[in-house]
Amino acid sequence: MTDSIVTSIEALHLVENILVKHGTTPENAHSVANALVAAEMDGQRGHGLSRVPSYAAQSASGKVDGKAEPVVNAQKGASVRIDAANGFAYPAFDLAIAELRRLTAQSGVAVATVFRSHHFGQAGYHAERLANEGLVGMVFGNSPQAIAPWGGHRGVFGTNPIAFAAPRRNDDPLLIDLSLSKVARGKVMFAQRKGEFIPDDWALDEHGRPTTDPSAALRGTMLPMGGAKGAALVMMVEVLAAGLSGAHFGYEATSFFTADGPPPGVGQMVLAFDPEFMSGGGFADRLEALIAEILSQDGVRLPGARRVALRAEAKEKGLRVPADLIDELNTLSR
Amino acid sequence: MTDSIVTSIEALHLVENILVKHGTTPENAHSVANALVAAEMDGQRGHGLSRVPSYAAQSASGKVDGKAEPVVNAQKGASVRIDAANGFAYPAFDLAIAELRRLTAQSGVAVATVFRSHHFGQAGYHAERLANEGLVGMVFGNSPQAIAPWGGHRGVFGTNPIAFAAPRRNDDPLLIDLSLSKVARGKVMFAQRKGEFIPDDWALDEHGRPTTDPSAALRGTMLPMGGAKGAALVMMVEVLAAGLSGAHFGYEATSFFTADGPPPGVGQMVLAFDPEFMSGGGFADRLEALIAEILSQDGVRLPGARRVALRAEAKEKGLRVPADLIDELNTLSR
Repeated sequence: MTDSIVTSIEALHLVENILVKHGTTPENAHSVANALVAAEMDGQRGHGLSRVPSYAAQSASGKVDGKAEPVVNAQKGASVRIDAANGFAYPAFDLAIAELRRLTAQSGVAVATVFRSHHFGQAGYHAERLANEGLVGMVFGNSPQAIAPWGGHRGVFGTNPIAFAAPRRNDDPLLIDLSLSKVARGKVMFAQRKGEFIPDDWALDEHGRPTTDPSAALRGTMLPMGGAKGAALVMMVEVLAAGLSGAHFGYEATSFFTADGPPPGVGQMVLAFDPEFMSGGGFADRLEALIAEILSQDGVRLPGARRVALRAEAKEKGLRVPADLIDELNTLSR
Repeated sequence: MTDSIVTSIEALHLVENILVKHGTTPENAHSVANALVAAEMDGQRGHGLSRVPSYAAQSASGKVDGKAEPVVNAQKGASVRIDAANGFAYPAFDLAIAELRRLTAQSGVAVATVFRSHHFGQAGYHAERLANEGLVGMVFGNSPQAIAPWGGHRGVFGTNPIAFAAPRRNDDPLLIDLSLSKVARGKVMFAQRKGEFIPDDWALDEHGRPTTDPSAALRGTMLPMGGAKGAALVMMVEVLAAGLSGAHFGYEATSFFTADGPPPGVGQMVLAFDPEFMSGGGFADRLEALIAEILSQDGVRLPGARRVALRAEAKEKGLRVPADLIDELNTLSR
């Protein structure tokens, strides 16, 4: 499979055109396109341009309301509820980030929950935007069922990412972004397509037994990172992102990929902290001291180092996108 | 080794007497004793009565200031900084919890950071107290260096617990409480005493190589749960608990056990959320729906189920404490 090279501006316009053609407002299309192109630049293809065909189909079918305007449903002090109104998640996050910026200036801390929401892409994208405003950001989200409770065999929770970002003085933010499954489900699908076995600690079959057969794994559930402890963290994120937002739990949510059925209605939580106030001043210096200590050891890199390198490369040389995906996108934009 | 049976009231008085005798105020001794006895009842012996001899020695030497009064150092909206003043952590958490109760009533969310702090025992104890007030609680703490950055060989971070608790309508709170090391260092010490090998995925030697030799492991570092992802979470908690509080990082902190040297000066973060506001009402019902879905699968238990069972047993039958520890405590109290 060959790759095509496109600039990020070309990719943005392409995505915007496709979404608008499929029933999304230009404002919402702009927000979605920014996030997908950023993911593509960061080498996170699973949250990048590969999503555009299914996003377009969902906007056309109405499973995602491309014309929805997210609104502040309620506010109490430093806590705000945002109704994504069954539209795309990204415009709701734009609103959440604006609210958090305003509220942390008064309160030192603020939280936004988002409900009636959808796939929110790279969790780290949103955390990093807060860090670019000088805030420490945390993001939790749930997704359609993929992980069973520990000891079980039926999916209840999503793969439930956690992202964290902190501003640095003269560098891109420190960024931690991970889903709580041991590996992404996409890796299992890839093995299935190639006719390969998978390691026996990636997934369980539908009876809750470890399996090396990718097809059995796809009928079963993904294993969490870190065993029983990881499974407990998955549950914690489910309660934070969906329980506290009043959204659908993973076992109630429809697919992020197919265009049929009701909206997934998942939830997210975004937290922001004012690091200079909270630390008593000097947060920036202290974070640099910690990072220097970490990097003083041979063979150690900061989390997100690969992403930073790929982003720099994409800025310089453009995006390498599979040629068949570009063909599909060009067709969708006509 | 035989066990002695003591009631929780007897244990509380014993701990209070010992601490007061070693220079702690009665108020602080009461707070410490409550937490240690609760941990002992929950079967968390590593955070229970076994700590009393070293706490007493540190109070006597001044490494912990048993007469310290924690104070609100600064407040901005829903964010409060608490100076534990190099005293025990528990009185600072009492203050933090009172502040969070007050602030969440106005703000829906609130955060307390604690600095110049010490060992705070079971992280879940503090989260559960918030849940008993109808709040969702989260607690993060750092501890003296035990875990290396991923790929490294020198300890930088603590074992850095995360705790989460949510109130339930007719049950004890849902409680998740885990340290981010794969296993507790105590398990390695236990293997060393018994002359046994340890599994090769528990710890690294001082050169950063996996080891089955407990003595080499104790000179090296503990492995995080969940590999590189877990190591990233350890770093996140270090920044939340110590970076945001303006406390010492793990590599800067002195031991929680020995009575010599300066105070450890670690940090903690406590978050509280008003679940009924944030969820738009109905949080209690939704949490029960999730828990019912989880427990509908054979072989599945909620996190913390063992702790709940042990606590109930301790309430009914008293605490089973190793006889030599009771002897040591009785000697210290005289």
